[in-house]
This record gives sequence, C-alpha cells and structure tokens, in this order.
Amino acid sequence: MKHTAILLIDCPDRRGLVAAVANFLYQYGANIVHADQHRDSELNLFLMRVEWDLEGFGLSSIEFREKFGLVAEKFQMRWKMEESSKPQRMAIFCSKQDHCLADLLYRHSSGELICEIPLVVSNHEEPSRLAEFYGIPFHYVPVVKGGKVQAERAQLDLLEKYSIDLLVLARYMQIFSSEFISHYPQKIINVHHSFLPAFAGGKPYHQAFERGVKLIGATSHYVTEDLDQGPIIEQDVARVSHRDQLDDLIQKGRDLEKMVLSRAVRWHVEHRILTYAKKTVIFD
Amino acid sequence: MKHTAILLIDCPDRRGLVAAVANFLYQYGANIVHADQHRDSELNLFLMRVEWDLEGFGLSSIEFREKFGLVAEKFQMRWKMEESSKPQRMAIFCSKQDHCLADLLYRHSSGELICEIPLVVSNHEEPSRLAEFYGIPFHYVPVVKGGKVQAERAQLDLLEKYSIDLLVLARYMQIFSSEFISHYPQKIINVHHSFLPAFAGGKPYHQAFERGVKLIGATSHYVTEDLDQGPIIEQDVARVSHRDQLDDLIQKGRDLEKMVLSRAVRWHVEHRILTYAKKTVIFD
Amino acid sequence: MKHTAILLIDCPDRRGLVAAVANFLYQYGANIVHADQHRDSELNLFLMRVEWDLEGFGLSSIEFREKFGLVAEKFQMRWKMEESSKPQRMAIFCSKQDHCLADLLYRHSSGELICEIPLVVSNHEEPSRLAEFYGIPFHYVPVVKGGKVQAERAQLDLLEKYSIDLLVLARYMQIFSSEFISHYPQKIINVHHSFLPAFAGGKPYHQAFERGVKLIGATSHYVTEDLDQGPIIEQDVARVSHRDQLDDLIQKGRDLEKMVLSRAVRWHVEHRILTYAKKTVIFD
Amino acid sequence: MKHTAILLIDCPDRRGLVAAVANFLYQYGANIVHADQHRDSELNLFLMRVEWDLEGFGLSSIEFREKFGLVAEKFQMRWKMEESSKPQRMAIFCSKQDHCLADLLYRHSSGELICEIPLVVSNHEEPSRLAEFYGIPFHYVPVVKGGKVQAERAQLDLLEKYSIDLLVLARYMQIFSSEFISHYPQKIINVHHSFLPAFAGGKPYHQAFERGVKLIGATSHYVTEDLDQGPIIEQDVARVSHRDQLDDLIQKGRDLEKMVLSRAVRWHVEHRILTYAKKTVIFD
Repeated sequence: MKHTAILLIDCPDRRGLVAAVANFLYQYGANIVHADQHRDSELNLFLMRVEWDLEGFGLSSIEFREKFGLVAEKFQMRWKMEESSKPQRMAIFCSKQDHCLADLLYRHSSGELICEIPLVVSNHEEPSRLAEFYGIPFHYVPVVKGGKVQAERAQLDLLEKYSIDLLVLARYMQIFSSEFISHYPQKIINVHHSFLPAFAGGKPYHQAFERGVKLIGATSHYVTEDLDQGPIIEQDVARVSHRDQLDDLIQKGRDLEKMVLSRAVRWHVEHRILTYAKKTVIFD
Repeated sequence: MKHTAILLIDCPDRRGLVAAVANFLYQYGANIVHADQHRDSELNLFLMRVEWDLEGFGLSSIEFREKFGLVAEKFQMRWKMEESSKPQRMAIFCSKQDHCLADLLYRHSSGELICEIPLVVSNHEEPSRLAEFYGIPFHYVPVVKGGKVQAERAQLDLLEKYSIDLLVLARYMQIFSSEFISHYPQKIINVHHSFLPAFAGGKPYHQAFERGVKLIGATSHYVTEDLDQGPIIEQDVARVSHRDQLDDLIQKGRDLEKMVLSRAVRWHVEHRILTYAKKTVIFD
Repeated sequence: MKHTAILLIDCPDRRGLVAAVANFLYQYGANIVHADQHRDSELNLFLMRVEWDLEGFGLSSIEFREKFGLVAEKFQMRWKMEESSKPQRMAIFCSKQDHCLADLLYRHSSGELICEIPLVVSNHEEPSRLAEFYGIPFHYVPVVKGGKVQAERAQLDLLEKYSIDLLVLARYMQIFSSEFISHYPQKIINVHHSFLPAFAGGKPYHQAFERGVKLIGATSHYVTEDLDQGPIIEQDVARVSHRDQLDDLIQKGRDLEKMVLSRAVRWHVEHRILTYAKKTVIFD
Repeated sequence: MKHTAILLIDCPDRRGLVAAVANFLYQYGANIVHADQHRDSELNLFLMRVEWDLEGFGLSSIEFREKFGLVAEKFQMRWKMEESSKPQRMAIFCSKQDHCLADLLYRHSSGELICEIPLVVSNHEEPSRLAEFYGIPFHYVPVVKGGKVQAERAQLDLLEKYSIDLLVLARYMQIFSSEFISHYPQKIINVHHSFLPAFAGGKPYHQAFERGVKLIGATSHYVTEDLDQGPIIEQDVARVSHRDQLDDLIQKGRDLEKMVLSRAVRWHVEHRILTYAKKTVIFD
C-alpha cells in the first residue's frame, strides 16, 4: 500500500501561495504525486490539494503540523493533513432497501474503497445477513414512534465508541435531528434519489413519474440541518421514456444511487473533497 | 420525398383496439411503415401512432376521415390524421440570443427538419440577418413597456396570416398571456435553460451555479398557462465541475438548448408526440 | 406475479401482418399488455413482440401452438411463444473477477431478474462463497492446460442436467470451442470489457489506455464462433481523462460491465431480444 | 478582453519542479489565474499548464523567454509561452458537408472561440456562401484527379501567406500527403465520424450500422502521417437503437461531430492541450 500524505488547504487568494506551499514541501524533500488548485475569483478563494510520497520526507506528522502551521498562519489557511496509511473509519446506516449497502460492502471487500468499516447500523434486522457475510459488525437500533431522541443517543454512542470519522446514509430513511448532525459536520454523506434540487423531500420517483421528466437522477451530498440542501458531491442521470412505469424508474434509479453514493464515499475517504459556500470542490 | 399518412390515437384501453385499426388499414391496402403503441395501465389509456405509405392506399383523405370516424366513434378515440406531404408551418420567435435560431435554420436548410418556416419574429432587430441569409421573412415586433397586449395582437395577426401550425420559442424571453397561449394549445414549444422542474423561472444558470450542481440541463416543453409547467418533450444534461464558472455553464448550456429544442421540433413536425395527463409520449 | 404470454415473430414483411396477429389474439380474448414492431426496409423484414395477459385468454399453450402455427405458416414466420410463469433457467460462469457475479446474484435476490439460477460454475474456487451466500449451487470445474475438451464436457453435462436455457459469462476468461457454442445458439451472453468493435481480444483496458481514448466502454453480446463478433445486445461508456491511470480504467470499467451485462440478461429472460443479420432488436 | 500569459511545460519528473516554476513567477509578481499539473508515473513525465495575469507582471515577453529559459534548461523542459492577447490564426478546410463549418463560424461570431479565422478553404464552391455571411475570405482550391500535389502546394501557399497557426479539417474529405502534414505538426485537427479506433477509414456510419452497435461516436484528433491514428483530443457518443436507420445514424452523428470538433478547437486555441506518447493531456 502506498504511504502518502495529503494536504487540503483553503484560504483567501493572494500571490505567492503556490510558491510558499511548493517551497515548504521541497525543502523537506517531498516527492509530489498529485497537486491540484482551484481559485474562485468571485469569492477570492484559493483551494488546494497536494499529495506527496512520505518515503524520504523529512518531517514526522507532528513536526509537519508544527512547522507548516507557521506558513498556514501567514496566509490565513484553513488546512488539514491526512496520511493515506491511516484509513478513515466509516459507519454505514441503512434501512430495508439494501442495494447501496450491498454495493458499498462489495466495493470495500474488493479493495476499491480504502477505509475501515467498523459497523453497519440499521433500524431493520434484515441487513444483518449482508453485514455478516462481509464480516462487518451489525447493530440493530430500532426507531420507535416517539423514540428518536433515544435512538440517536444510542447511535451517537456507537459512533463514538468505534471512533467513526464518516457516516454514510445508504438509503437510511430516518431524518436526523440538528443536534445529531452537529456532531459530524461535513462528515455525513447521504444519497437522495432525485436530481436535486428537483424533487427534494419524500417519494422523489413518484414525483418524477407524475411530472413526466425524460431523465431521472440521483444525488449524493453532505448532510446539513436543511433537509436535502447540503453541498452536492455527485449527481448522475439515466434516460427514461413513457415506456417506463414507476417501478422501472425505481429500478433504474437504484443503479444511479449506487454510483453517486460510492463515488462520493471514495472521494471522501481519499480526501478529495473541499466544501465552501454550500458547494464542493472535487480534486479528482 | 416519401408520401405517407400518420394516424395518432388516444382512447380508453380495451380489447380489440389494435385489431380494429390494423384491419381498417389492411382493408384499404395500407402498407404500414411504422406502428407503435403505448398503454398506460394506471390511467387505462391506449395511445397509438401508425404511419403507412399512401401509394396504393384505397382512400382519399376525405374518405378516410369519414370512414375511420365510425371506428373512432365506437372506441371513443381522440384522433388525427396527417399527411407527410403537407408539411407543418412553423414560426420561430427569438430574442437577441440567437444560437437556437441559427441552429434551427441550419437544420431546416440542410433538410433535417421537414417543415415550412414562413416567418421569424423577434423583439430585436439583430436576428434579421440570419433570417435573411436563410431566406426566411423576418418580422420585428417590439414589446415596449405596457405594450404587451398590442404586441401579442400583432403577433397573432402574423401567425394567422401565415397559417402557422407550430410556434417555436427559440430563447424568446417574453412571457405570453394566457389569452395568447389559448390560441395554440400543444402548439407552442419552448426551451427552458434548466433541467426542469429544477430552476424554473428566471436566471436558471445563475441558480444552478449558486446551488453547486454537478450537471446542468435544458428542457423543451409545450407551453401552457402555468409558466415552465407544460408537458416535457425532451431533456438533456452536461457535466460541470468546480472549474466551470457561470460563463462556462451558459456556454455548455447553449449546446444543450439547441439539442433539446431541435429534437422537440423534429418530433412535433413528424407527428411523433402525444400529450396526456401533463406528460408526453414520444413515438420515436 | 403476472401471468402473461410473449410472442416473438420475424418474417418477410408484407401487408396484413399486424392485422393477422392482432385478429388472432383478439379472437381468443387476449388483453394485450405490450406490443412492438420493427420493420427493416432494407432487408424487407418484419419483427414483432407482443405480450398479453393469460387471464381470460381462450387457448391453452398447446392449443395456441397448434392454431397459431397455421397463421405462422401462411406468413413464413419464425416464431416462439413463452410464458412469463415459466422462468428461464440461467447458469452463470465466472472466474476470480467476481464483480459481475456479485451484481447478478444481488439483482436476482432482490427480484430485479425474474429467472432461476440453478448453478454457478467457475474454474476458481473463490466464487463459491458468494454463490453459497445467495443459496445457489456452485460447481468448480478446473480448466487445466490441455484439458479444455474435458472441462467443456463436464460443463455441458452440468448444463444439460440442470436444464439450462441461458448461459451467462460473467467475466469468465476461458474461450469456448465452436463445438461447445453450437449447443447454445443465441443462448450464451458474454460481457467484453471494451466498446466493441474497438479493442477486441485480450487486455482491452490496456489497449484503451495505450491509445489514449477519452471514453472507455463495455459490451454485452451473444457468443458466436467468431470471438467478440456476435450480435451486440448493449453497450455503455464512461468518460476518462489523462488523470485516469490503467487501474482507474479497470475500476470505472467494472461498473460499465455490470450495467451492460445485467441489462442484457434482463432483456433476454424477459424475451425482449430478437437477432437478425448479426444484429439485435431490443423490444424495450 | 483578459490579458494573460500561458506557460506549457513537459519534462522528466523530479522534485522541486513546481517550486521552481512557482518561485520564478512569484519573483516577478505573477498573479496566477489557473494552474494544473499532471504526472505520468509510468513514463516519469511531468506536464504543467499555468496561466497568469499580465497586469503587474514584471517581465516583457522577450525578457521572460530569456530568463525562464535558464530554469527550463536546468530541468530539461520542452516549453512554450503564449499570450492570450495574440489569438491563434485558424484556417478551416471543408467539403460540401458544411455542418461543422457552420457550427465553427457561428461559435466564432458569438465570441465562444477566441481566435482569428483569416480563411476558409474548400474543394467545393458551395461553402463560400456561409463564409461570406460570416465575413471570412473564402478560397476555392479544387482537387482534380492526379492534381493533389498541385492542390497541396496552393493550400500551403495560402496557409503561409495568411500566417496560419492552426488548420481545422471540418469534414474535409481529402487525405493529405505526409509532406503536407509535416509542415503543421500537432497543428492540424480533424474530426472522424466514429468512435476511434472503431471504424477507422471510410464510411464509418455504414460500418457502424452494419455491425449493429448500440452507440455511435465521433472523435477529434491531431492529424499525423498515420490515417486516423493521431492523438485523440475528444470523443463523444450517442445512443442508437434498431429503430435508427443509416440516415438516422448520420444525422445523430452530425451533432456529435460538431461537439467534439468545436471542443477540440477551443482547447487548442486556449493552449489547453499537450501531447505526449501519442496521447493528449487536456488542461481544462
């Protein structure tokens, strides 16, 4: 497995930024593997992702944080440095609709998603079979009427106990409280089964069928307090026609959901996403 | 040029419909070129398009209408019969944004759109050059503040004078009154520069840019009283990323607009569209 | 589960074909659910698929074959009638690359593919786990050097024993002999990991990477004696850029392979495919 | 109009490259607008495009070439520096099929393609009307049997006389000699009406129709001595079905050709393309 470091930066744009970062890394012998920058001229923002080989790099993780902190301060950077050898710890939440769960677990087992999955959580018992097959601990957390606060408490305990970095809602049909969400800012990824902002809210395929659209879509996004309004990570669409009944839309949609959710998860665990102004930058 | 007849039917679904139509046509020697049916099981509707060669067909247009009327009555059909040798007469309305106009006129001149274009109408004078190049009469109908009623009167006069069958709004930025629209039910095609129902209303590319979507779209639809709510004919999308600024969205969108509008126009003039329940069936 | 009959026809085109079929079905009280026709004017061919509800239909399967045989003879039809209540029996062959296997088994278990899967066959032992999880009998048939004839014999025995109608090669990497293929004409579906006819043969992703294409593809097709030359059922593509290395192509390609293979299988088991002149007609 | 400089670099990859370039630009006060790098780890190549605002930049074009030359030498760079205020001079060659010509001229006139078009050349007289409408000088250079050498001589004279930087073959159906091509290395862009490498050579839509593919494509590429083998710049595809006859393929293909050719031209005139190892890198 490769052993690299990834640095993500956003800050006000100004001259000399790239030079400052490149010099810092060069100074300590970094062999840059990928580098990508983005400037938002309207908001005067600079965003950067740089990945380098840690072999032969002259700074330990602690030293890097200390020394690069000085550069960062000078340029008012928000930044984080991650190491590819310390994979993200991801929890998957799902309901009875388990196609996204099956897809994510397969991709993980085949090495496509480099992360750890310490737990699968569901308010249904059925997904336990899939989790078990892939060797992932399963936790059944029922959500009874009036029991949401209690369920979220149990879920948060699990997330904390297992040191979860990323929470993926793989067609988990419950809506979280703002309180819950506040614990995982930009760390909860949801898949919505429509081309947002069209057909937000419930039963999007029914809405799409009713409206007679010629393409259906799916959207993966970070979860914020505002339902279906968080920063969009990925979207995709499929063509439908009058020959497609509601069931056909739902079936075609499942493939879209799997695609947009798995891409979002991969980009997140590879530290390829920065968010700003309710949008995402994907450093692919 | 081929000389065919096209029959479009919709009616309550029941047994024997296809047999009745097929027998009728066979009885008079029709050589069917294309036939397509659709059933909406939820609404119990039957929709059909059939096209046959008029060479060797035993009924004149008048006779057909008389005799087929009896079949139609029995099955409570809404129906119309059109002949390919009598091309639709299309008027194009546009504003200063003339990319859709240029596209439609080129397609017409190259034989891709089989129809007549007796006039181009605009509230700007600039498009006259393009119209002139392609040999299409141009009419400048300004829309001054408070003068919409008067402008629409002049436009309706033109449409009537030139016996227009189809009105295409090729990025014409004025909103028509209900009164105007009522003269051309299912006969006005508009292109909206978003993936409807997302970003209806004004400045859709600005809305899309603001929201941070990963795909932009365009939609062609029939115009009804409800703005941007008419039956959708065609939609398409293009991928965008954080690298695309507002101008890039607008530029990529222009290509989408041309595609979805020209396809809608072609299907309409080839009598391939039936509308029901706020949706379209495209017999392609 | 719906209980319908499907009739697939191809024959020389002539007047009265639709009327003859529609009358026949109407006569015995068929309630047509779907009907679709295609004419190839160049080859003067007529192809048709019609599906009707068997509830209230006046003929048994045996009676239908007898009576419709007379109509068929008159029009020189090649035809077959299938009943949706008698699902196809499908065998899946795979190698160590098991993403298509996992995909097909999941789709089957979730009710998306209406067929029976009596066996999974592989020349590797690893896929047994997946098969077992989904409750499908697994057969390990090794193919040793010089032992192809023997392996094919064992495979044919299995296919016969389990009365297999359809053989799906889900990234099965062995090439079958003509003798083997001749037992299952138009009944073996393969997925090739390129946009055929580009990059036929071995290592298509390597070829694509080498050539610097901007889109990669996958193709599902019926297997014939000519390697990678059989009638194409479905194709799809995904965009790649210079940022994508060979591994990225392979990973993106896996999703394409799953899509084009699962669609082909679904269309086949729903009796939606007719082949003629080295091509397929998909009645979707 | 913006006034920027673009620097394109490729060289063997080694540590310190980004730092060296960034420092050089920072030293003279460059305000970087875009920067993008690519590493090909297999070939150990580093490729870079950087664009900066010339307002406030401390070096003239001549000074830049002199001083940056020292940096370039140290790192064995192949490089070029272009200024956005000195637009490329593009010649368009076409035949009777004028849809790509019409498309390029419209895009140029609407400001989408920032370049100069001093001449349109054709072996047919018909395109002169379009050229005239858009105010572009037209040159009729017939290619009679056995007269190719003479025609190419006339064409080269025109290209030289008008100081042409880029030659675009907008469905120009003549094949150039190696001698001709050698004058414009990586400076001739062609559009081929298939998804290369599938259906290279003549009549690609006929080949595609015959083969029964489910997607048709178009490819824009640099012209090299090897017919249809030059580095691919852009490709796109459209779905077709058995309902599409050869004419439909040709018509759908025209839209693809316009898209892939116009994108290639835009990227070229904006200095976004680097070629290496028979491939292109598109810095978008």
